[in-house]
Amino acid sequence: MMNWKDKFSLDAKAIKASDIRELLKLLDDPSILSFAGGIPDPALFPMNKVAEIRKNLESHPDLNRQSMQYSKTEGYNPLRQWVADKYSSAETEISQENVLITNGAQQSLTLLATALIDAATPIAVANPTYLGALQIFGTRRPNYITVDTDENGIIIKSLKSAFQKGVKLLYTIPDFQNPGGMIIPEDRRKKIIELAHEFDVIILEDTAYRELYYDAPPPPSLLTLEGQFLGEGQWHQAGLVIQIGTASKTLMPALRVGWTIAPLDILEKLVMLKQSNDLHSSTLNQIITHELSSSGLETHIDKLRDVYGRRRDTMVDALRSYMPNCATFSRPAGGMFVWITLAEDMDASELLQKALATEKLAFVPGAAFFANGGGENTFRLSFSTCDDKDIIDGVRRLSTLIQREHLQKVHPKQWS
Amino acid sequence: MMNWKDKFSLDAKAIKASDIRELLKLLDDPSILSFAGGIPDPALFPMNKVAEIRKNLESHPDLNRQSMQYSKTEGYNPLRQWVADKYSSAETEISQENVLITNGAQQSLTLLATALIDAATPIAVANPTYLGALQIFGTRRPNYITVDTDENGIIIKSLKSAFQKGVKLLYTIPDFQNPGGMIIPEDRRKKIIELAHEFDVIILEDTAYRELYYDAPPPPSLLTLEGQFLGEGQWHQAGLVIQIGTASKTLMPALRVGWTIAPLDILEKLVMLKQSNDLHSSTLNQIITHELSSSGLETHIDKLRDVYGRRRDTMVDALRSYMPNCATFSRPAGGMFVWITLAEDMDASELLQKALATEKLAFVPGAAFFANGGGENTFRLSFSTCDDKDIIDGVRRLSTLIQREHLQKVHPKQWS
Repeated sequence: MMNWKDKFSLDAKAIKASDIRELLKLLDDPSILSFAGGIPDPALFPMNKVAEIRKNLESHPDLNRQSMQYSKTEGYNPLRQWVADKYSSAETEISQENVLITNGAQQSLTLLATALIDAATPIAVANPTYLGALQIFGTRRPNYITVDTDENGIIIKSLKSAFQKGVKLLYTIPDFQNPGGMIIPEDRRKKIIELAHEFDVIILEDTAYRELYYDAPPPPSLLTLEGQFLGEGQWHQAGLVIQIGTASKTLMPALRVGWTIAPLDILEKLVMLKQSNDLHSSTLNQIITHELSSSGLETHIDKLRDVYGRRRDTMVDALRSYMPNCATFSRPAGGMFVWITLAEDMDASELLQKALATEKLAFVPGAAFFANGGGENTFRLSFSTCDDKDIIDGVRRLSTLIQREHLQKVHPKQWS
Repeated sequence: MMNWKDKFSLDAKAIKASDIRELLKLLDDPSILSFAGGIPDPALFPMNKVAEIRKNLESHPDLNRQSMQYSKTEGYNPLRQWVADKYSSAETEISQENVLITNGAQQSLTLLATALIDAATPIAVANPTYLGALQIFGTRRPNYITVDTDENGIIIKSLKSAFQKGVKLLYTIPDFQNPGGMIIPEDRRKKIIELAHEFDVIILEDTAYRELYYDAPPPPSLLTLEGQFLGEGQWHQAGLVIQIGTASKTLMPALRVGWTIAPLDILEKLVMLKQSNDLHSSTLNQIITHELSSSGLETHIDKLRDVYGRRRDTMVDALRSYMPNCATFSRPAGGMFVWITLAEDMDASELLQKALATEKLAFVPGAAFFANGGGENTFRLSFSTCDDKDIIDGVRRLSTLIQREHLQKVHPKQWS
């Protein structure tokens, strides 16, 4: 009998099955109420617009055929130009040459990890941070230096300490972070840019949730702030910020369209890596993304803000009403996630097993979001796909379960 | 000024811009007659069927929305089942659990390279072989052991010598190879399987061109033959053959849909890598691929065989009529490529410069298909996208250019 385990590369040996992955398998069971996935509500997808775009494509036979043909690795030029225009600032004019279209932000991370990380390269990530980033970085076997966070995201003192340890890059989600929901305020953002340049650290800025704000628009991005810091036009030569974006949260995930914005010298390398990885992204899906983006996008996102914002309110209100004192929770100003911290001695993975078994309720235990361990008493709730009734009912039942579990820890059953 | 070159990983430093990539950029110029790309003719795309599928999807609103939602990494189950059914044989029953949907064969190679190749791992590839495979394998910095070929593909003696050097895997395209067009006969295929088991070498079988036969169907695949070699059901435990397929050549490239068929232990690892690479392939494109595959595919491919087969005949006839004796050429029994070998002292890259400048003609110089150098006097012609008139005219002009260049080498101009 073949033992494949002996045949795997060192990189492949380093990867493990993810909790989220195993969880998402459960979600095929429609009787489970899921607060697990960080996924948009399909009821909000602009399907009528997609139908219009398809119909229009079909009335242009040449373009329609081209939409199914091989196309260039860099991406569909009109979409690249749309990205360039949208993310240019007064100080930093982005051109389409700075934009690579990828299969979602996840592939942007894959290409950047391959381009920049060797085995044992020290890299900084927040504690907690996006599991998918840890998964792909993990295949490069880096040396993780974790940065502590508070309700305002990355703590600068902890970041400086990480930078002093010689990290090569920082991966960060400044807006409504996955999983913590924190938004980094402008003063901290400026400090991050200053420190990056003091210590020559590359910044990978993931903007996946940036458009999904429910209170006020977020502060300028790290890309924009670095432009201000460096002065007009300087990012192209001296920039350390590489920005990653996606259509998955604002439009539709199965388009598998995201992008990377980077100075030319690194963008060219990323293009070569993308070419060797999968030649190019679906031409058709890039055309659909461009059409959806260039007309009516703000109106569509306003609708998302309205619906998701109300669900955020419902979940936070329900948590205030029902959650026992042994747990604290965040009130995110955007994104899809509420972050829960249980009493120190509680374990969210055990809680999940019970929630699934007795309540048919799912969420994501927090430990997987911690690069170097920890976070066993934390978990993530998503409010993006559930209606008010389910949110209230689910939070109530989950709260009762937590209360019961907590009491058992404090007053364990004894022989009477 | 930032020097990004210093910041690249060792893997990223190892990759170079590809000739094909630079070439494909030229092909935006419509005045160039291109025999370069290994691409299908968009005029043959089944666009009416695609329109039908879309219309049908739109009349099923739930499925239509699901086609735009995140979906599981392994792929769309009906498509996985279609692949499993199609590639099962009497001895080897493939189940959908053995199938991973990828973004085309190129991503299958990416995941397999990550899973199996460490820096300096010895791997065997044919001389010449598919450039895209060399590009992605190259990012893992393997130790290439090249295997010589003749008009029947891999030479067994050279393969055995490579296996004796301790290679871990062999990458091969047994049917109508890119770029050489060779098809490996059944006796050699059996020898490859025997040697793989004697030396414990993994076989990556790329079937990209298998369906495009113009004379007779190809012999059984390595996957099927290994099943016969091992006996009923044994591949699942003892199989060394991993098969890679794609919809890019038979249907449409921009679907970006391919697949990997592998024993469970390795398939599970590939799924984890795919998840960390880009989560999953476009749900919509998988649905379209499944619909196109499960109804009318044979009729469609028969049409491709008919059109491409005639173009193959036209090109080979034109080469017979016009090509000077200083060049030899293959007569492929399928696929998209004719392989040309010039006199030893001629250089196909120089020829390309002249062909572009004076004839506005493009092809792919062969050197890039040789893992460890060589092949400077070879090049690849594709006949898949050109009509008869262009093929005859292009081959005639190219032949004249070659004749002229050859005479200059043999009788260089001298001071009179």
